[in-house]
Amino acid sequence: MKNQIEKYFDRLWPINRSLTGDGNRETLKILSEIVKSLEIQEIPSGTKCFDWTVPPEWKIKEAWIRNSRGEKIIDFAENNLHVIGYSTPINKKINLEELKSITKTLPEQPGLIPYVTSYYKERYGFCMSHNQLESLKEDTYHIFIDSQLDYDGSMTIGDAVLKGESKKEILLSTYICHPSMASNELSGPLVTSFLYNELLKIKNRKYTYRFLFLPETIGSICYLSMYGDNLKQKLIAGYVVTCIGDNGNFTYKKSRMGNSLADRASELVLKQSEKNYNIIDFFPMGSDERQYCSPGFNLPVGSLMRTMYGIYPEYHTSGDNKDFINFEALENSIKKYLDIFKVIEYNFKYINKMPYCEPQLGKRGLYPTMGGKGLKKIIEGTMWLLNQSDGKNDLIDIANKSNVNYNILIDNIDKLLKSGILIKGNSNF
Amino acid sequence: MKNQIEKYFDRLWPINRSLTGDGNRETLKILSEIVKSLEIQEIPSGTKCFDWTVPPEWKIKEAWIRNSRGEKIIDFAENNLHVIGYSTPINKKINLEELKSITKTLPEQPGLIPYVTSYYKERYGFCMSHNQLESLKEDTYHIFIDSQLDYDGSMTIGDAVLKGESKKEILLSTYICHPSMASNELSGPLVTSFLYNELLKIKNRKYTYRFLFLPETIGSICYLSMYGDNLKQKLIAGYVVTCIGDNGNFTYKKSRMGNSLADRASELVLKQSEKNYNIIDFFPMGSDERQYCSPGFNLPVGSLMRTMYGIYPEYHTSGDNKDFINFEALENSIKKYLDIFKVIEYNFKYINKMPYCEPQLGKRGLYPTMGGKGLKKIIEGTMWLLNQSDGKNDLIDIANKSNVNYNILIDNIDKLLKSGILIKGNSNF
Amino acid sequence: MKNQIEKYFDRLWPINRSLTGDGNRETLKILSEIVKSLEIQEIPSGTKCFDWTVPPEWKIKEAWIRNSRGEKIIDFAENNLHVIGYSTPINKKINLEELKSITKTLPEQPGLIPYVTSYYKERYGFCMSHNQLESLKEDTYHIFIDSQLDYDGSMTIGDAVLKGESKKEILLSTYICHPSMASNELSGPLVTSFLYNELLKIKNRKYTYRFLFLPETIGSICYLSMYGDNLKQKLIAGYVVTCIGDNGNFTYKKSRMGNSLADRASELVLKQSEKNYNIIDFFPMGSDERQYCSPGFNLPVGSLMRTMYGIYPEYHTSGDNKDFINFEALENSIKKYLDIFKVIEYNFKYINKMPYCEPQLGKRGLYPTMGGKGLKKIIEGTMWLLNQSDGKNDLIDIANKSNVNYNILIDNIDKLLKSGILIKGNSNF
Repeated sequence: MKNQIEKYFDRLWPINRSLTGDGNRETLKILSEIVKSLEIQEIPSGTKCFDWTVPPEWKIKEAWIRNSRGEKIIDFAENNLHVIGYSTPINKKINLEELKSITKTLPEQPGLIPYVTSYYKERYGFCMSHNQLESLKEDTYHIFIDSQLDYDGSMTIGDAVLKGESKKEILLSTYICHPSMASNELSGPLVTSFLYNELLKIKNRKYTYRFLFLPETIGSICYLSMYGDNLKQKLIAGYVVTCIGDNGNFTYKKSRMGNSLADRASELVLKQSEKNYNIIDFFPMGSDERQYCSPGFNLPVGSLMRTMYGIYPEYHTSGDNKDFINFEALENSIKKYLDIFKVIEYNFKYINKMPYCEPQLGKRGLYPTMGGKGLKKIIEGTMWLLNQSDGKNDLIDIANKSNVNYNILIDNIDKLLKSGILIKGNSNF
Repeated sequence: MKNQIEKYFDRLWPINRSLTGDGNRETLKILSEIVKSLEIQEIPSGTKCFDWTVPPEWKIKEAWIRNSRGEKIIDFAENNLHVIGYSTPINKKINLEELKSITKTLPEQPGLIPYVTSYYKERYGFCMSHNQLESLKEDTYHIFIDSQLDYDGSMTIGDAVLKGESKKEILLSTYICHPSMASNELSGPLVTSFLYNELLKIKNRKYTYRFLFLPETIGSICYLSMYGDNLKQKLIAGYVVTCIGDNGNFTYKKSRMGNSLADRASELVLKQSEKNYNIIDFFPMGSDERQYCSPGFNLPVGSLMRTMYGIYPEYHTSGDNKDFINFEALENSIKKYLDIFKVIEYNFKYINKMPYCEPQLGKRGLYPTMGGKGLKKIIEGTMWLLNQSDGKNDLIDIANKSNVNYNILIDNIDKLLKSGILIKGNSNF
Repeated sequence: MKNQIEKYFDRLWPINRSLTGDGNRETLKILSEIVKSLEIQEIPSGTKCFDWTVPPEWKIKEAWIRNSRGEKIIDFAENNLHVIGYSTPINKKINLEELKSITKTLPEQPGLIPYVTSYYKERYGFCMSHNQLESLKEDTYHIFIDSQLDYDGSMTIGDAVLKGESKKEILLSTYICHPSMASNELSGPLVTSFLYNELLKIKNRKYTYRFLFLPETIGSICYLSMYGDNLKQKLIAGYVVTCIGDNGNFTYKKSRMGNSLADRASELVLKQSEKNYNIIDFFPMGSDERQYCSPGFNLPVGSLMRTMYGIYPEYHTSGDNKDFINFEALENSIKKYLDIFKVIEYNFKYINKMPYCEPQLGKRGLYPTMGGKGLKKIIEGTMWLLNQSDGKNDLIDIANKSNVNYNILIDNIDKLLKSGILIKGNSNF
């Protein structure tokens, strides 16, 4: 799978994504090769979404700075970080001092270009490495941005659904608004799309899975203003998929609820499958979980990441590029999300129909016929399930109390369901 | 007391106990010298108990293996571990390879004989030390077991009651089915019997005490199938008495409830009287707490042990013998159980009848008449009892909050009850 | 402020305070220069208060011991600790052995004079340093105490109120019964009085503040017997002010409730403003919190101290003197109490009126217009308040969850209230 992921990465990398614009349309078109049922929706600029308004569409064709010898010192065509996102058009000759006043750099990371946007205040500007800016001499610079803020444009979003036995939904939400960013952008849409593909292969999915591709903040606010009530009714667990492509340990940021099914399943899987990982309580900064977990919605949405935004020095710079991520790690991130879904799909409060003393497992082939030392390991999954399946404990509770691995418990559940000793009880929804 | 315990140990040690049989009858007869009111009951083979059936009675007279020179290389009369429990009869000459296929050893503890049973699948077999098996040469071996599985036999259990003021019961349950095992068998019946004797001496026992001597698993399942409803109504605390004879630190395994009176009293006593001890959450392996704490019963039954089954290398081998245990430790185990019962008997939610400010203790002789330094230690038990006796906190709560030793609190309770400042409130039952 | 505190300290230090007497009257008269609205009340000796009786008034004019050469070896006029509190009159010549039998010393702190009282048993006696007692030779000693236990006297207490918008009250209770003690006496009345002065300067106090100056134990019992029901209705938080004058770290002793507003506000302020501090669970020894937190009242009264009574070796000795305390520390203690009151006054469950997704803060000037790195710190107070203000979390909850300093949160609350996004919800009373 990792080679295929890499191919898509290479195609998506150079495209200029933003809140709006053709780059976003092209990105969704490419992803729909994987996410077959992706539905693309256009929301007109000016649309009201709660306290917000969909901004004009940003259209940009060309941008550069030339020195007096006509040499391009930076070119948007080479790296789309060179222009501040949502820059208005300009065509002007300026001196070095003026250039400095409209150029953002990172003095503490002098080799990297920063990623800067100005969505809601009209301005123009450029970004470059601090080293480059320092090397510039007094000169006349020609700055040129051929862009437009089109108030008759629209914002593009993508939505796909994989139906399951139940109408209850599991949500994966990712964003498509950062230009050339690797972990803090493309890891999200890529993991989300390939998860679609993997889930498609699983028969008898219990739950319905929803996949959202949105520009960050305004996209999720807009989606929630249209479909928030639907999510409130159906959502049992959700994840904002971002920053999931590097080599770092997994990080799980909890939903605002703190003990939602999304949280409990993720924590169990990380605890039982990873040596080192981080669990972080919800905080109201970060990505679109800010909107899903706003107090009016308070949805069960967390975020399984690797190294979190804001933590790594390459974050929001040109350093968050292909070298920073790892396609094997990306593939393992997909597997980790699948493991979490497996736990959620099996997470019932089972009921032991033979609750008075233990059933005689030996005559059912579920217990060794000879007693001696070392019995414990073989049978502990079964014994825990029988003892705890009183209709009050679900799979996650039992895995946490027993420290028996969820995969072993799931195998034992299948056997005990087949023998008729266990039946499925409530799933909490 | 410890010399008397040792005498009984020596008489009980050589007897062959199993799920059924004359060894069990003889064991109960000897114990009834101490437990005067012991009632012995025979449950016919074939009796249905929930999902289980009482097995045929195992009768064994003689068993050995002879080499071609007629020498007995092992003899059941010398060590009853040499025969797999519930072995069917056999009388046959076999070669070394065949002998190996029916003989259990412990390659990693080559000097010890394992303890092995096959209650529910008919087979025969022998146990010996791995060293002995390795030393055997190619030869013709005569194997002989004079045993019978008698389907008209019965299983023998013992039940004794010491009545108290209340019909509410405290249960001690121990097993009598392992042959020559010291800590993992005889420590249990011996501590249980001598506890009977000690409790008999206490006047005004508040609660009724019940003492059960049962073969493990099938015995408790059978007892619960007959009297489980009675226990469910009356039991306030219970303990499975096993593995309580060695020099190790105390280990308390909690009941499934996790905060039952049995658990709270044991934890308090260990915390306030022992430097090193272990508290273990309930897990559904182990001894008869598996049945008492099955989800249909969920009784408040834990287990105060020293070194737990499965933990020590001598467990279920010939190494769990008289050398492994210590009669002074056994006597102290009895005292520890008595301390727990003392806490339970005093565990009321007392009510302070003078709850507005402090009563003037000085004029009642309960407070020093001169104020200065160092008052705290003298009066803290009294002060805690007065402050916390609002009908919501019981003795155990107050001891835990205050860190004042339960013996000091109990003395102060007696004084404050006498003065009329405290009265007895609810005992929670 | 600290110089002014020191001046009052020097005036109050030499006065002989006890449960009753002119020393207490003089102390309250001096304090009423600061606490303008202080009302002084006389409770006649013999008055019944719950289980207690107001003792006779202790009047003492003069006391000394002279040796046979007529030299005063100790003199009450020099240090009022030399006489056991409430000593009855005596005028007698005795030998050294008799002198020793009526003299208290501290053999383990031989240079210090102990502080000893005998309020409820009539006796007389002296205190001196152990070194002095050891140096005395066989001689005839003239002991003289010119005192009286006046059954027609009275006990003097002081009570002041600063009214706020609400009738709900915050209580400060301190004691005035120890003679020349610095941290364990005068730090209390001084901090309490200067807090009165500081609170007086604050406009729009939400709550009413009550200041009590009482002899310890009998004073608070007497006050509660008269006004306890009033406190029960109105009190939202209270503090016993004592041992707050030394250089030690702050110590907060919780109310019996353990999570009262008094406790939560103090813990938050210490956690967010101090590197090292102690939080201690309630225990029913100590000062007047014993009475306020007796089970019949169970008021939300804790105690913010520095080094607690009983902990420091100078406690209840002549070593607890001006050298032991620090006037800068005293001033900081006052500021710490004021910070706690600030938190209490702002402690509402605010309600976000725009709970669906985030409001667009940028257009209100509450969010930077350019996106990039390092946004988090600037806006996290606001983001936490918006996310958590669902009517279930109060300021203290949000400060604890977010680790954002309460001062920043309070600033942000003011801005968000002004913008109309937040409104005040419940204050829990």
